[in-house]
Amino acid sequence: MPKLAYLGPEATFTEEALRILAPDAEGLPSANVSAALDAARRGEADGAVVPLENSLEGGISSTLDELAWGEPLLITAELLLPVQFSLLTRTEMPLSDVKRVYTHPAAITQCRGFVAREMPDAVVVPAPSTAAAAQEVADPGSPYDAAIAARIAGERYGLVELASGVGDRSDTVTRFIRLSRPGLLPEPTGSDCTSLVAFLTDDHPGALLEMLTEFSVRGVNLTRIESRPTGDGIGRYFFHFDFEGHVAEARVGEAVSGLRRICADVRFLGSYPRADGTAPQIKRGTADDDFAEAAGWLSRIRSGRP
Amino acid sequence: MPKLAYLGPEATFTEEALRILAPDAEGLPSANVSAALDAARRGEADGAVVPLENSLEGGISSTLDELAWGEPLLITAELLLPVQFSLLTRTEMPLSDVKRVYTHPAAITQCRGFVAREMPDAVVVPAPSTAAAAQEVADPGSPYDAAIAARIAGERYGLVELASGVGDRSDTVTRFIRLSRPGLLPEPTGSDCTSLVAFLTDDHPGALLEMLTEFSVRGVNLTRIESRPTGDGIGRYFFHFDFEGHVAEARVGEAVSGLRRICADVRFLGSYPRADGTAPQIKRGTADDDFAEAAGWLSRIRSGRP
Amino acid sequence: MPKLAYLGPEATFTEEALRILAPDAEGLPSANVSAALDAARRGEADGAVVPLENSLEGGISSTLDELAWGEPLLITAELLLPVQFSLLTRTEMPLSDVKRVYTHPAAITQCRGFVAREMPDAVVVPAPSTAAAAQEVADPGSPYDAAIAARIAGERYGLVELASGVGDRSDTVTRFIRLSRPGLLPEPTGSDCTSLVAFLTDDHPGALLEMLTEFSVRGVNLTRIESRPTGDGIGRYFFHFDFEGHVAEARVGEAVSGLRRICADVRFLGSYPRADGTAPQIKRGTADDDFAEAAGWLSRIRSGRP
Amino acid sequence: MPKLAYLGPEATFTEEALRILAPDAEGLPSANVSAALDAARRGEADGAVVPLENSLEGGISSTLDELAWGEPLLITAELLLPVQFSLLTRTEMPLSDVKRVYTHPAAITQCRGFVAREMPDAVVVPAPSTAAAAQEVADPGSPYDAAIAARIAGERYGLVELASGVGDRSDTVTRFIRLSRPGLLPEPTGSDCTSLVAFLTDDHPGALLEMLTEFSVRGVNLTRIESRPTGDGIGRYFFHFDFEGHVAEARVGEAVSGLRRICADVRFLGSYPRADGTAPQIKRGTADDDFAEAAGWLSRIRSGRP
Repeated sequence: MPKLAYLGPEATFTEEALRILAPDAEGLPSANVSAALDAARRGEADGAVVPLENSLEGGISSTLDELAWGEPLLITAELLLPVQFSLLTRTEMPLSDVKRVYTHPAAITQCRGFVAREMPDAVVVPAPSTAAAAQEVADPGSPYDAAIAARIAGERYGLVELASGVGDRSDTVTRFIRLSRPGLLPEPTGSDCTSLVAFLTDDHPGALLEMLTEFSVRGVNLTRIESRPTGDGIGRYFFHFDFEGHVAEARVGEAVSGLRRICADVRFLGSYPRADGTAPQIKRGTADDDFAEAAGWLSRIRSGRP
Repeated sequence: MPKLAYLGPEATFTEEALRILAPDAEGLPSANVSAALDAARRGEADGAVVPLENSLEGGISSTLDELAWGEPLLITAELLLPVQFSLLTRTEMPLSDVKRVYTHPAAITQCRGFVAREMPDAVVVPAPSTAAAAQEVADPGSPYDAAIAARIAGERYGLVELASGVGDRSDTVTRFIRLSRPGLLPEPTGSDCTSLVAFLTDDHPGALLEMLTEFSVRGVNLTRIESRPTGDGIGRYFFHFDFEGHVAEARVGEAVSGLRRICADVRFLGSYPRADGTAPQIKRGTADDDFAEAAGWLSRIRSGRP
Repeated sequence: MPKLAYLGPEATFTEEALRILAPDAEGLPSANVSAALDAARRGEADGAVVPLENSLEGGISSTLDELAWGEPLLITAELLLPVQFSLLTRTEMPLSDVKRVYTHPAAITQCRGFVAREMPDAVVVPAPSTAAAAQEVADPGSPYDAAIAARIAGERYGLVELASGVGDRSDTVTRFIRLSRPGLLPEPTGSDCTSLVAFLTDDHPGALLEMLTEFSVRGVNLTRIESRPTGDGIGRYFFHFDFEGHVAEARVGEAVSGLRRICADVRFLGSYPRADGTAPQIKRGTADDDFAEAAGWLSRIRSGRP
Repeated sequence: MPKLAYLGPEATFTEEALRILAPDAEGLPSANVSAALDAARRGEADGAVVPLENSLEGGISSTLDELAWGEPLLITAELLLPVQFSLLTRTEMPLSDVKRVYTHPAAITQCRGFVAREMPDAVVVPAPSTAAAAQEVADPGSPYDAAIAARIAGERYGLVELASGVGDRSDTVTRFIRLSRPGLLPEPTGSDCTSLVAFLTDDHPGALLEMLTEFSVRGVNLTRIESRPTGDGIGRYFFHFDFEGHVAEARVGEAVSGLRRICADVRFLGSYPRADGTAPQIKRGTADDDFAEAAGWLSRIRSGRP
């Protein structure tokens, strides 16, 4: 039974993601993303599950920066988990009695409409995590009347679900990733995604355009780009890229090699099956067969047979 | 005396930025970025000062999203403010006596090295803001021994500065912007920056490359690109762009018009003097004179005079 | 009745083109392309008709260079004329008796298969033009037995058409253009073509790519590119471009202005109806309405209304 | 002693080129470019020397088309030969007595200024080649008074050099190439050139831009591009490319493979030392070492070691 560290405390959305990604795994709750990844790095766990981005809030900076700067780990799987918020209280009560609500800032944003409409007089206070909010509310001495958190947190801490689906959008999704220590990559499935981090050699104008051209010229479609500061002052960034395909494929291999040649550094983060299962459209001339044919031809002409 | 809303509470780095950007202004502390901007939108303040990005933490999501989705405001100035963290306590004490530290998560990250080295046994707890942490610590009944916050917060709440410059990097900088209701743009100075938000028509492969080409072909250098989720599910993003030059300049005007034509929507956020005062290098053929000459020529050839 | 100079002598394919392009015109045969264009320039003729390219032989260098270097003229019309070669003799005779054939080198190439198959022992000698070949063969003292030329030349010089359609391909086409002194351009028809000549500022790597990008970024499709030496040594070229659309259209105007800004010189050669009548597909965001909308928007944001 | 076919007759500039490229070779004059190449193809000669382009006249169509369509041959060397025209007569005479001049049309163009200035009343008649003109003029019964041709032709046919250097430009250069049957390529010298022919899959807009991008993204600089008609009607072209570097180099190999993948067909014409001896500037990230490092890295990450 594998042991997987995750962004805890228990009863967060991340634990839910872990249960789906690895139903048989033993979960090891960690205080934050760094701690979860460190557990995997040090071998205290066999891997880790952490959130990477949210369709409303964007990239999770701590995950992005850990992947870029920390001891290398490989992404081996991803999961898209719909986010369902519940309003949780110690006891059954009318909504109008809820005066102080405790939850994570991301949830504050995502439930703003519900709060304004249903409990306009309530004060909403930021908490370190949604699970921490639920735990706090479960304490009879808590100054808070309710938490906004995952239903799983209500169950864990014995809270009443006063309302469910209190997020303003029903289609909010969080993308979670499973990480492992370096080792064999997942096999290509025909519907894969590759992630990497690229650091510019210098910040010359057009550097980003050059990077994108390395992808486009080999017909590799980007699905996400995220800039992050290098820490060396405003105006200095590095980039997270997600794109279609597996690094074992020729077009992806040539594209990332091209990126490697023009960048100061490229860190490969993994090739893994896409959660949505869609297969990319391969641009004319960029299938593995096309690369093989061209390589054979190159070999021939290099030995003087045009 | 203008009144400017800012991201409060009092004694944050944002108040410091406001004092530099507008020494004569009356400050109106606001609970969060949205509240500060709303005060400016509703006329309760003449404008607002909020952080846009930090050289260590990256873009401030709440500012980025407010600028994109909220009632339009114009950026009229920017400021780069070095961030200096101090360790603040109620009374003088040895560092080794500090057991519980309260501060904002961004500061936790930025001071991690100092804490690990100088007070390895201390527990660091996340606070809603550095100023809130200082205020909490000033309370004699507080469970926390120290706050990490700006020196100004220590002065405001009567705390002792046990250590200064406790950030791991001395060159951390936050970029603040001043916002106004729509109206006249600041005049071009020769060293300007323009900001805008671009929404894709659809998410076809190569859309980002197309957008960047609209800039590069007119010799307009990007200085920042930041992707943000549209809220319509993982894989759907819009983009913040900062670039050199003033929209009154011909090359910038043509580039943003080109972007406008290929995007579903473009929101202009302002043209304003660069904080660093550097003038861009104008690429051959893209100065205002070059555009004027070409326009004259076009006019001639359209009337049949080659 | 307009008078039009053309590449003579009489009875060439060019005269045929002139008859179609301007049925009512009086033709003024000229010794060569330069002479025809000079007649138009000096006002001895109202215009000129000359060949520009052939689907088998390529561009007509003398026309390309005259348009680039000579006193400016405007292209006002084009014509695609199928080229039909006939084998012409003084008297009726068996094919096998034809021992010496006289014709233009282009016709030699185009009729090579026929000659090899039907008259394998014949010697083919290059002539200055197909009409000159016919005229020569009409001379009873000529050492040549036959000419390969247009049927019209046979009629003009009283020759027998021993065989028709002797070209190896039935679809060979020559493109002719009508030229006028600078003046009003033909009105846009929705199916137009624009021609120009571009001289590089310097021969830096990537200069051609830059030029093509000026077109592609405005959605303007090139239909022909032809490099010609500048005369300043091997490796120095200028370029003839043909592309879809009329210079009165916004996307074409902006593209050629962009080219003008990055080139040492651009000479506009004209916008005129396409011979094939096909309308270009307008890329999203590049119709005149899109440019007008973007111009209105630019105007608004420049006055501070985002 | 190798035997090399060349574009004859004897005493042309091409023979001069052959003497320099292969001083020890036996020359085999051929009636035209096709014949010279066929002699090499059939083994009647060990190779061939033909002109490829002229700095005033442009590409030699017959050579370009033979290389593209004929049985494949490899370019193994190039030569840049200054073109010096002489005015040649049967006997010494005053310039003013020269009434009829016979020469090749290219020479007519190149000597136009001299003729207009020094012998304004002379009639200039086009000849099949400059050497043929000299041979004709050597005939006492010739209707022509003088030929414009290479000095070597005057010597061959016993003519008087009435004037030398009669070309309008002193820097006119013709580029000659030496061709061999397929076999070993010349070794890379650090200053090489590669030539090929590319046929588009279809004539979609942007196809040329795509081809150029395959070069630019690998830092390969084009030195010549020449479009030629495919024969399938106006608007259908294929392209000759010359570019810096040897196909044995990694960046060149990847670029031509990329071209191969996106084109209907690519014909390799050879990699050979540059006549001008200049070494290309290698763009950052595109040296052989950079490719080798990236290949090693790709290998590592494919086996899961980021």
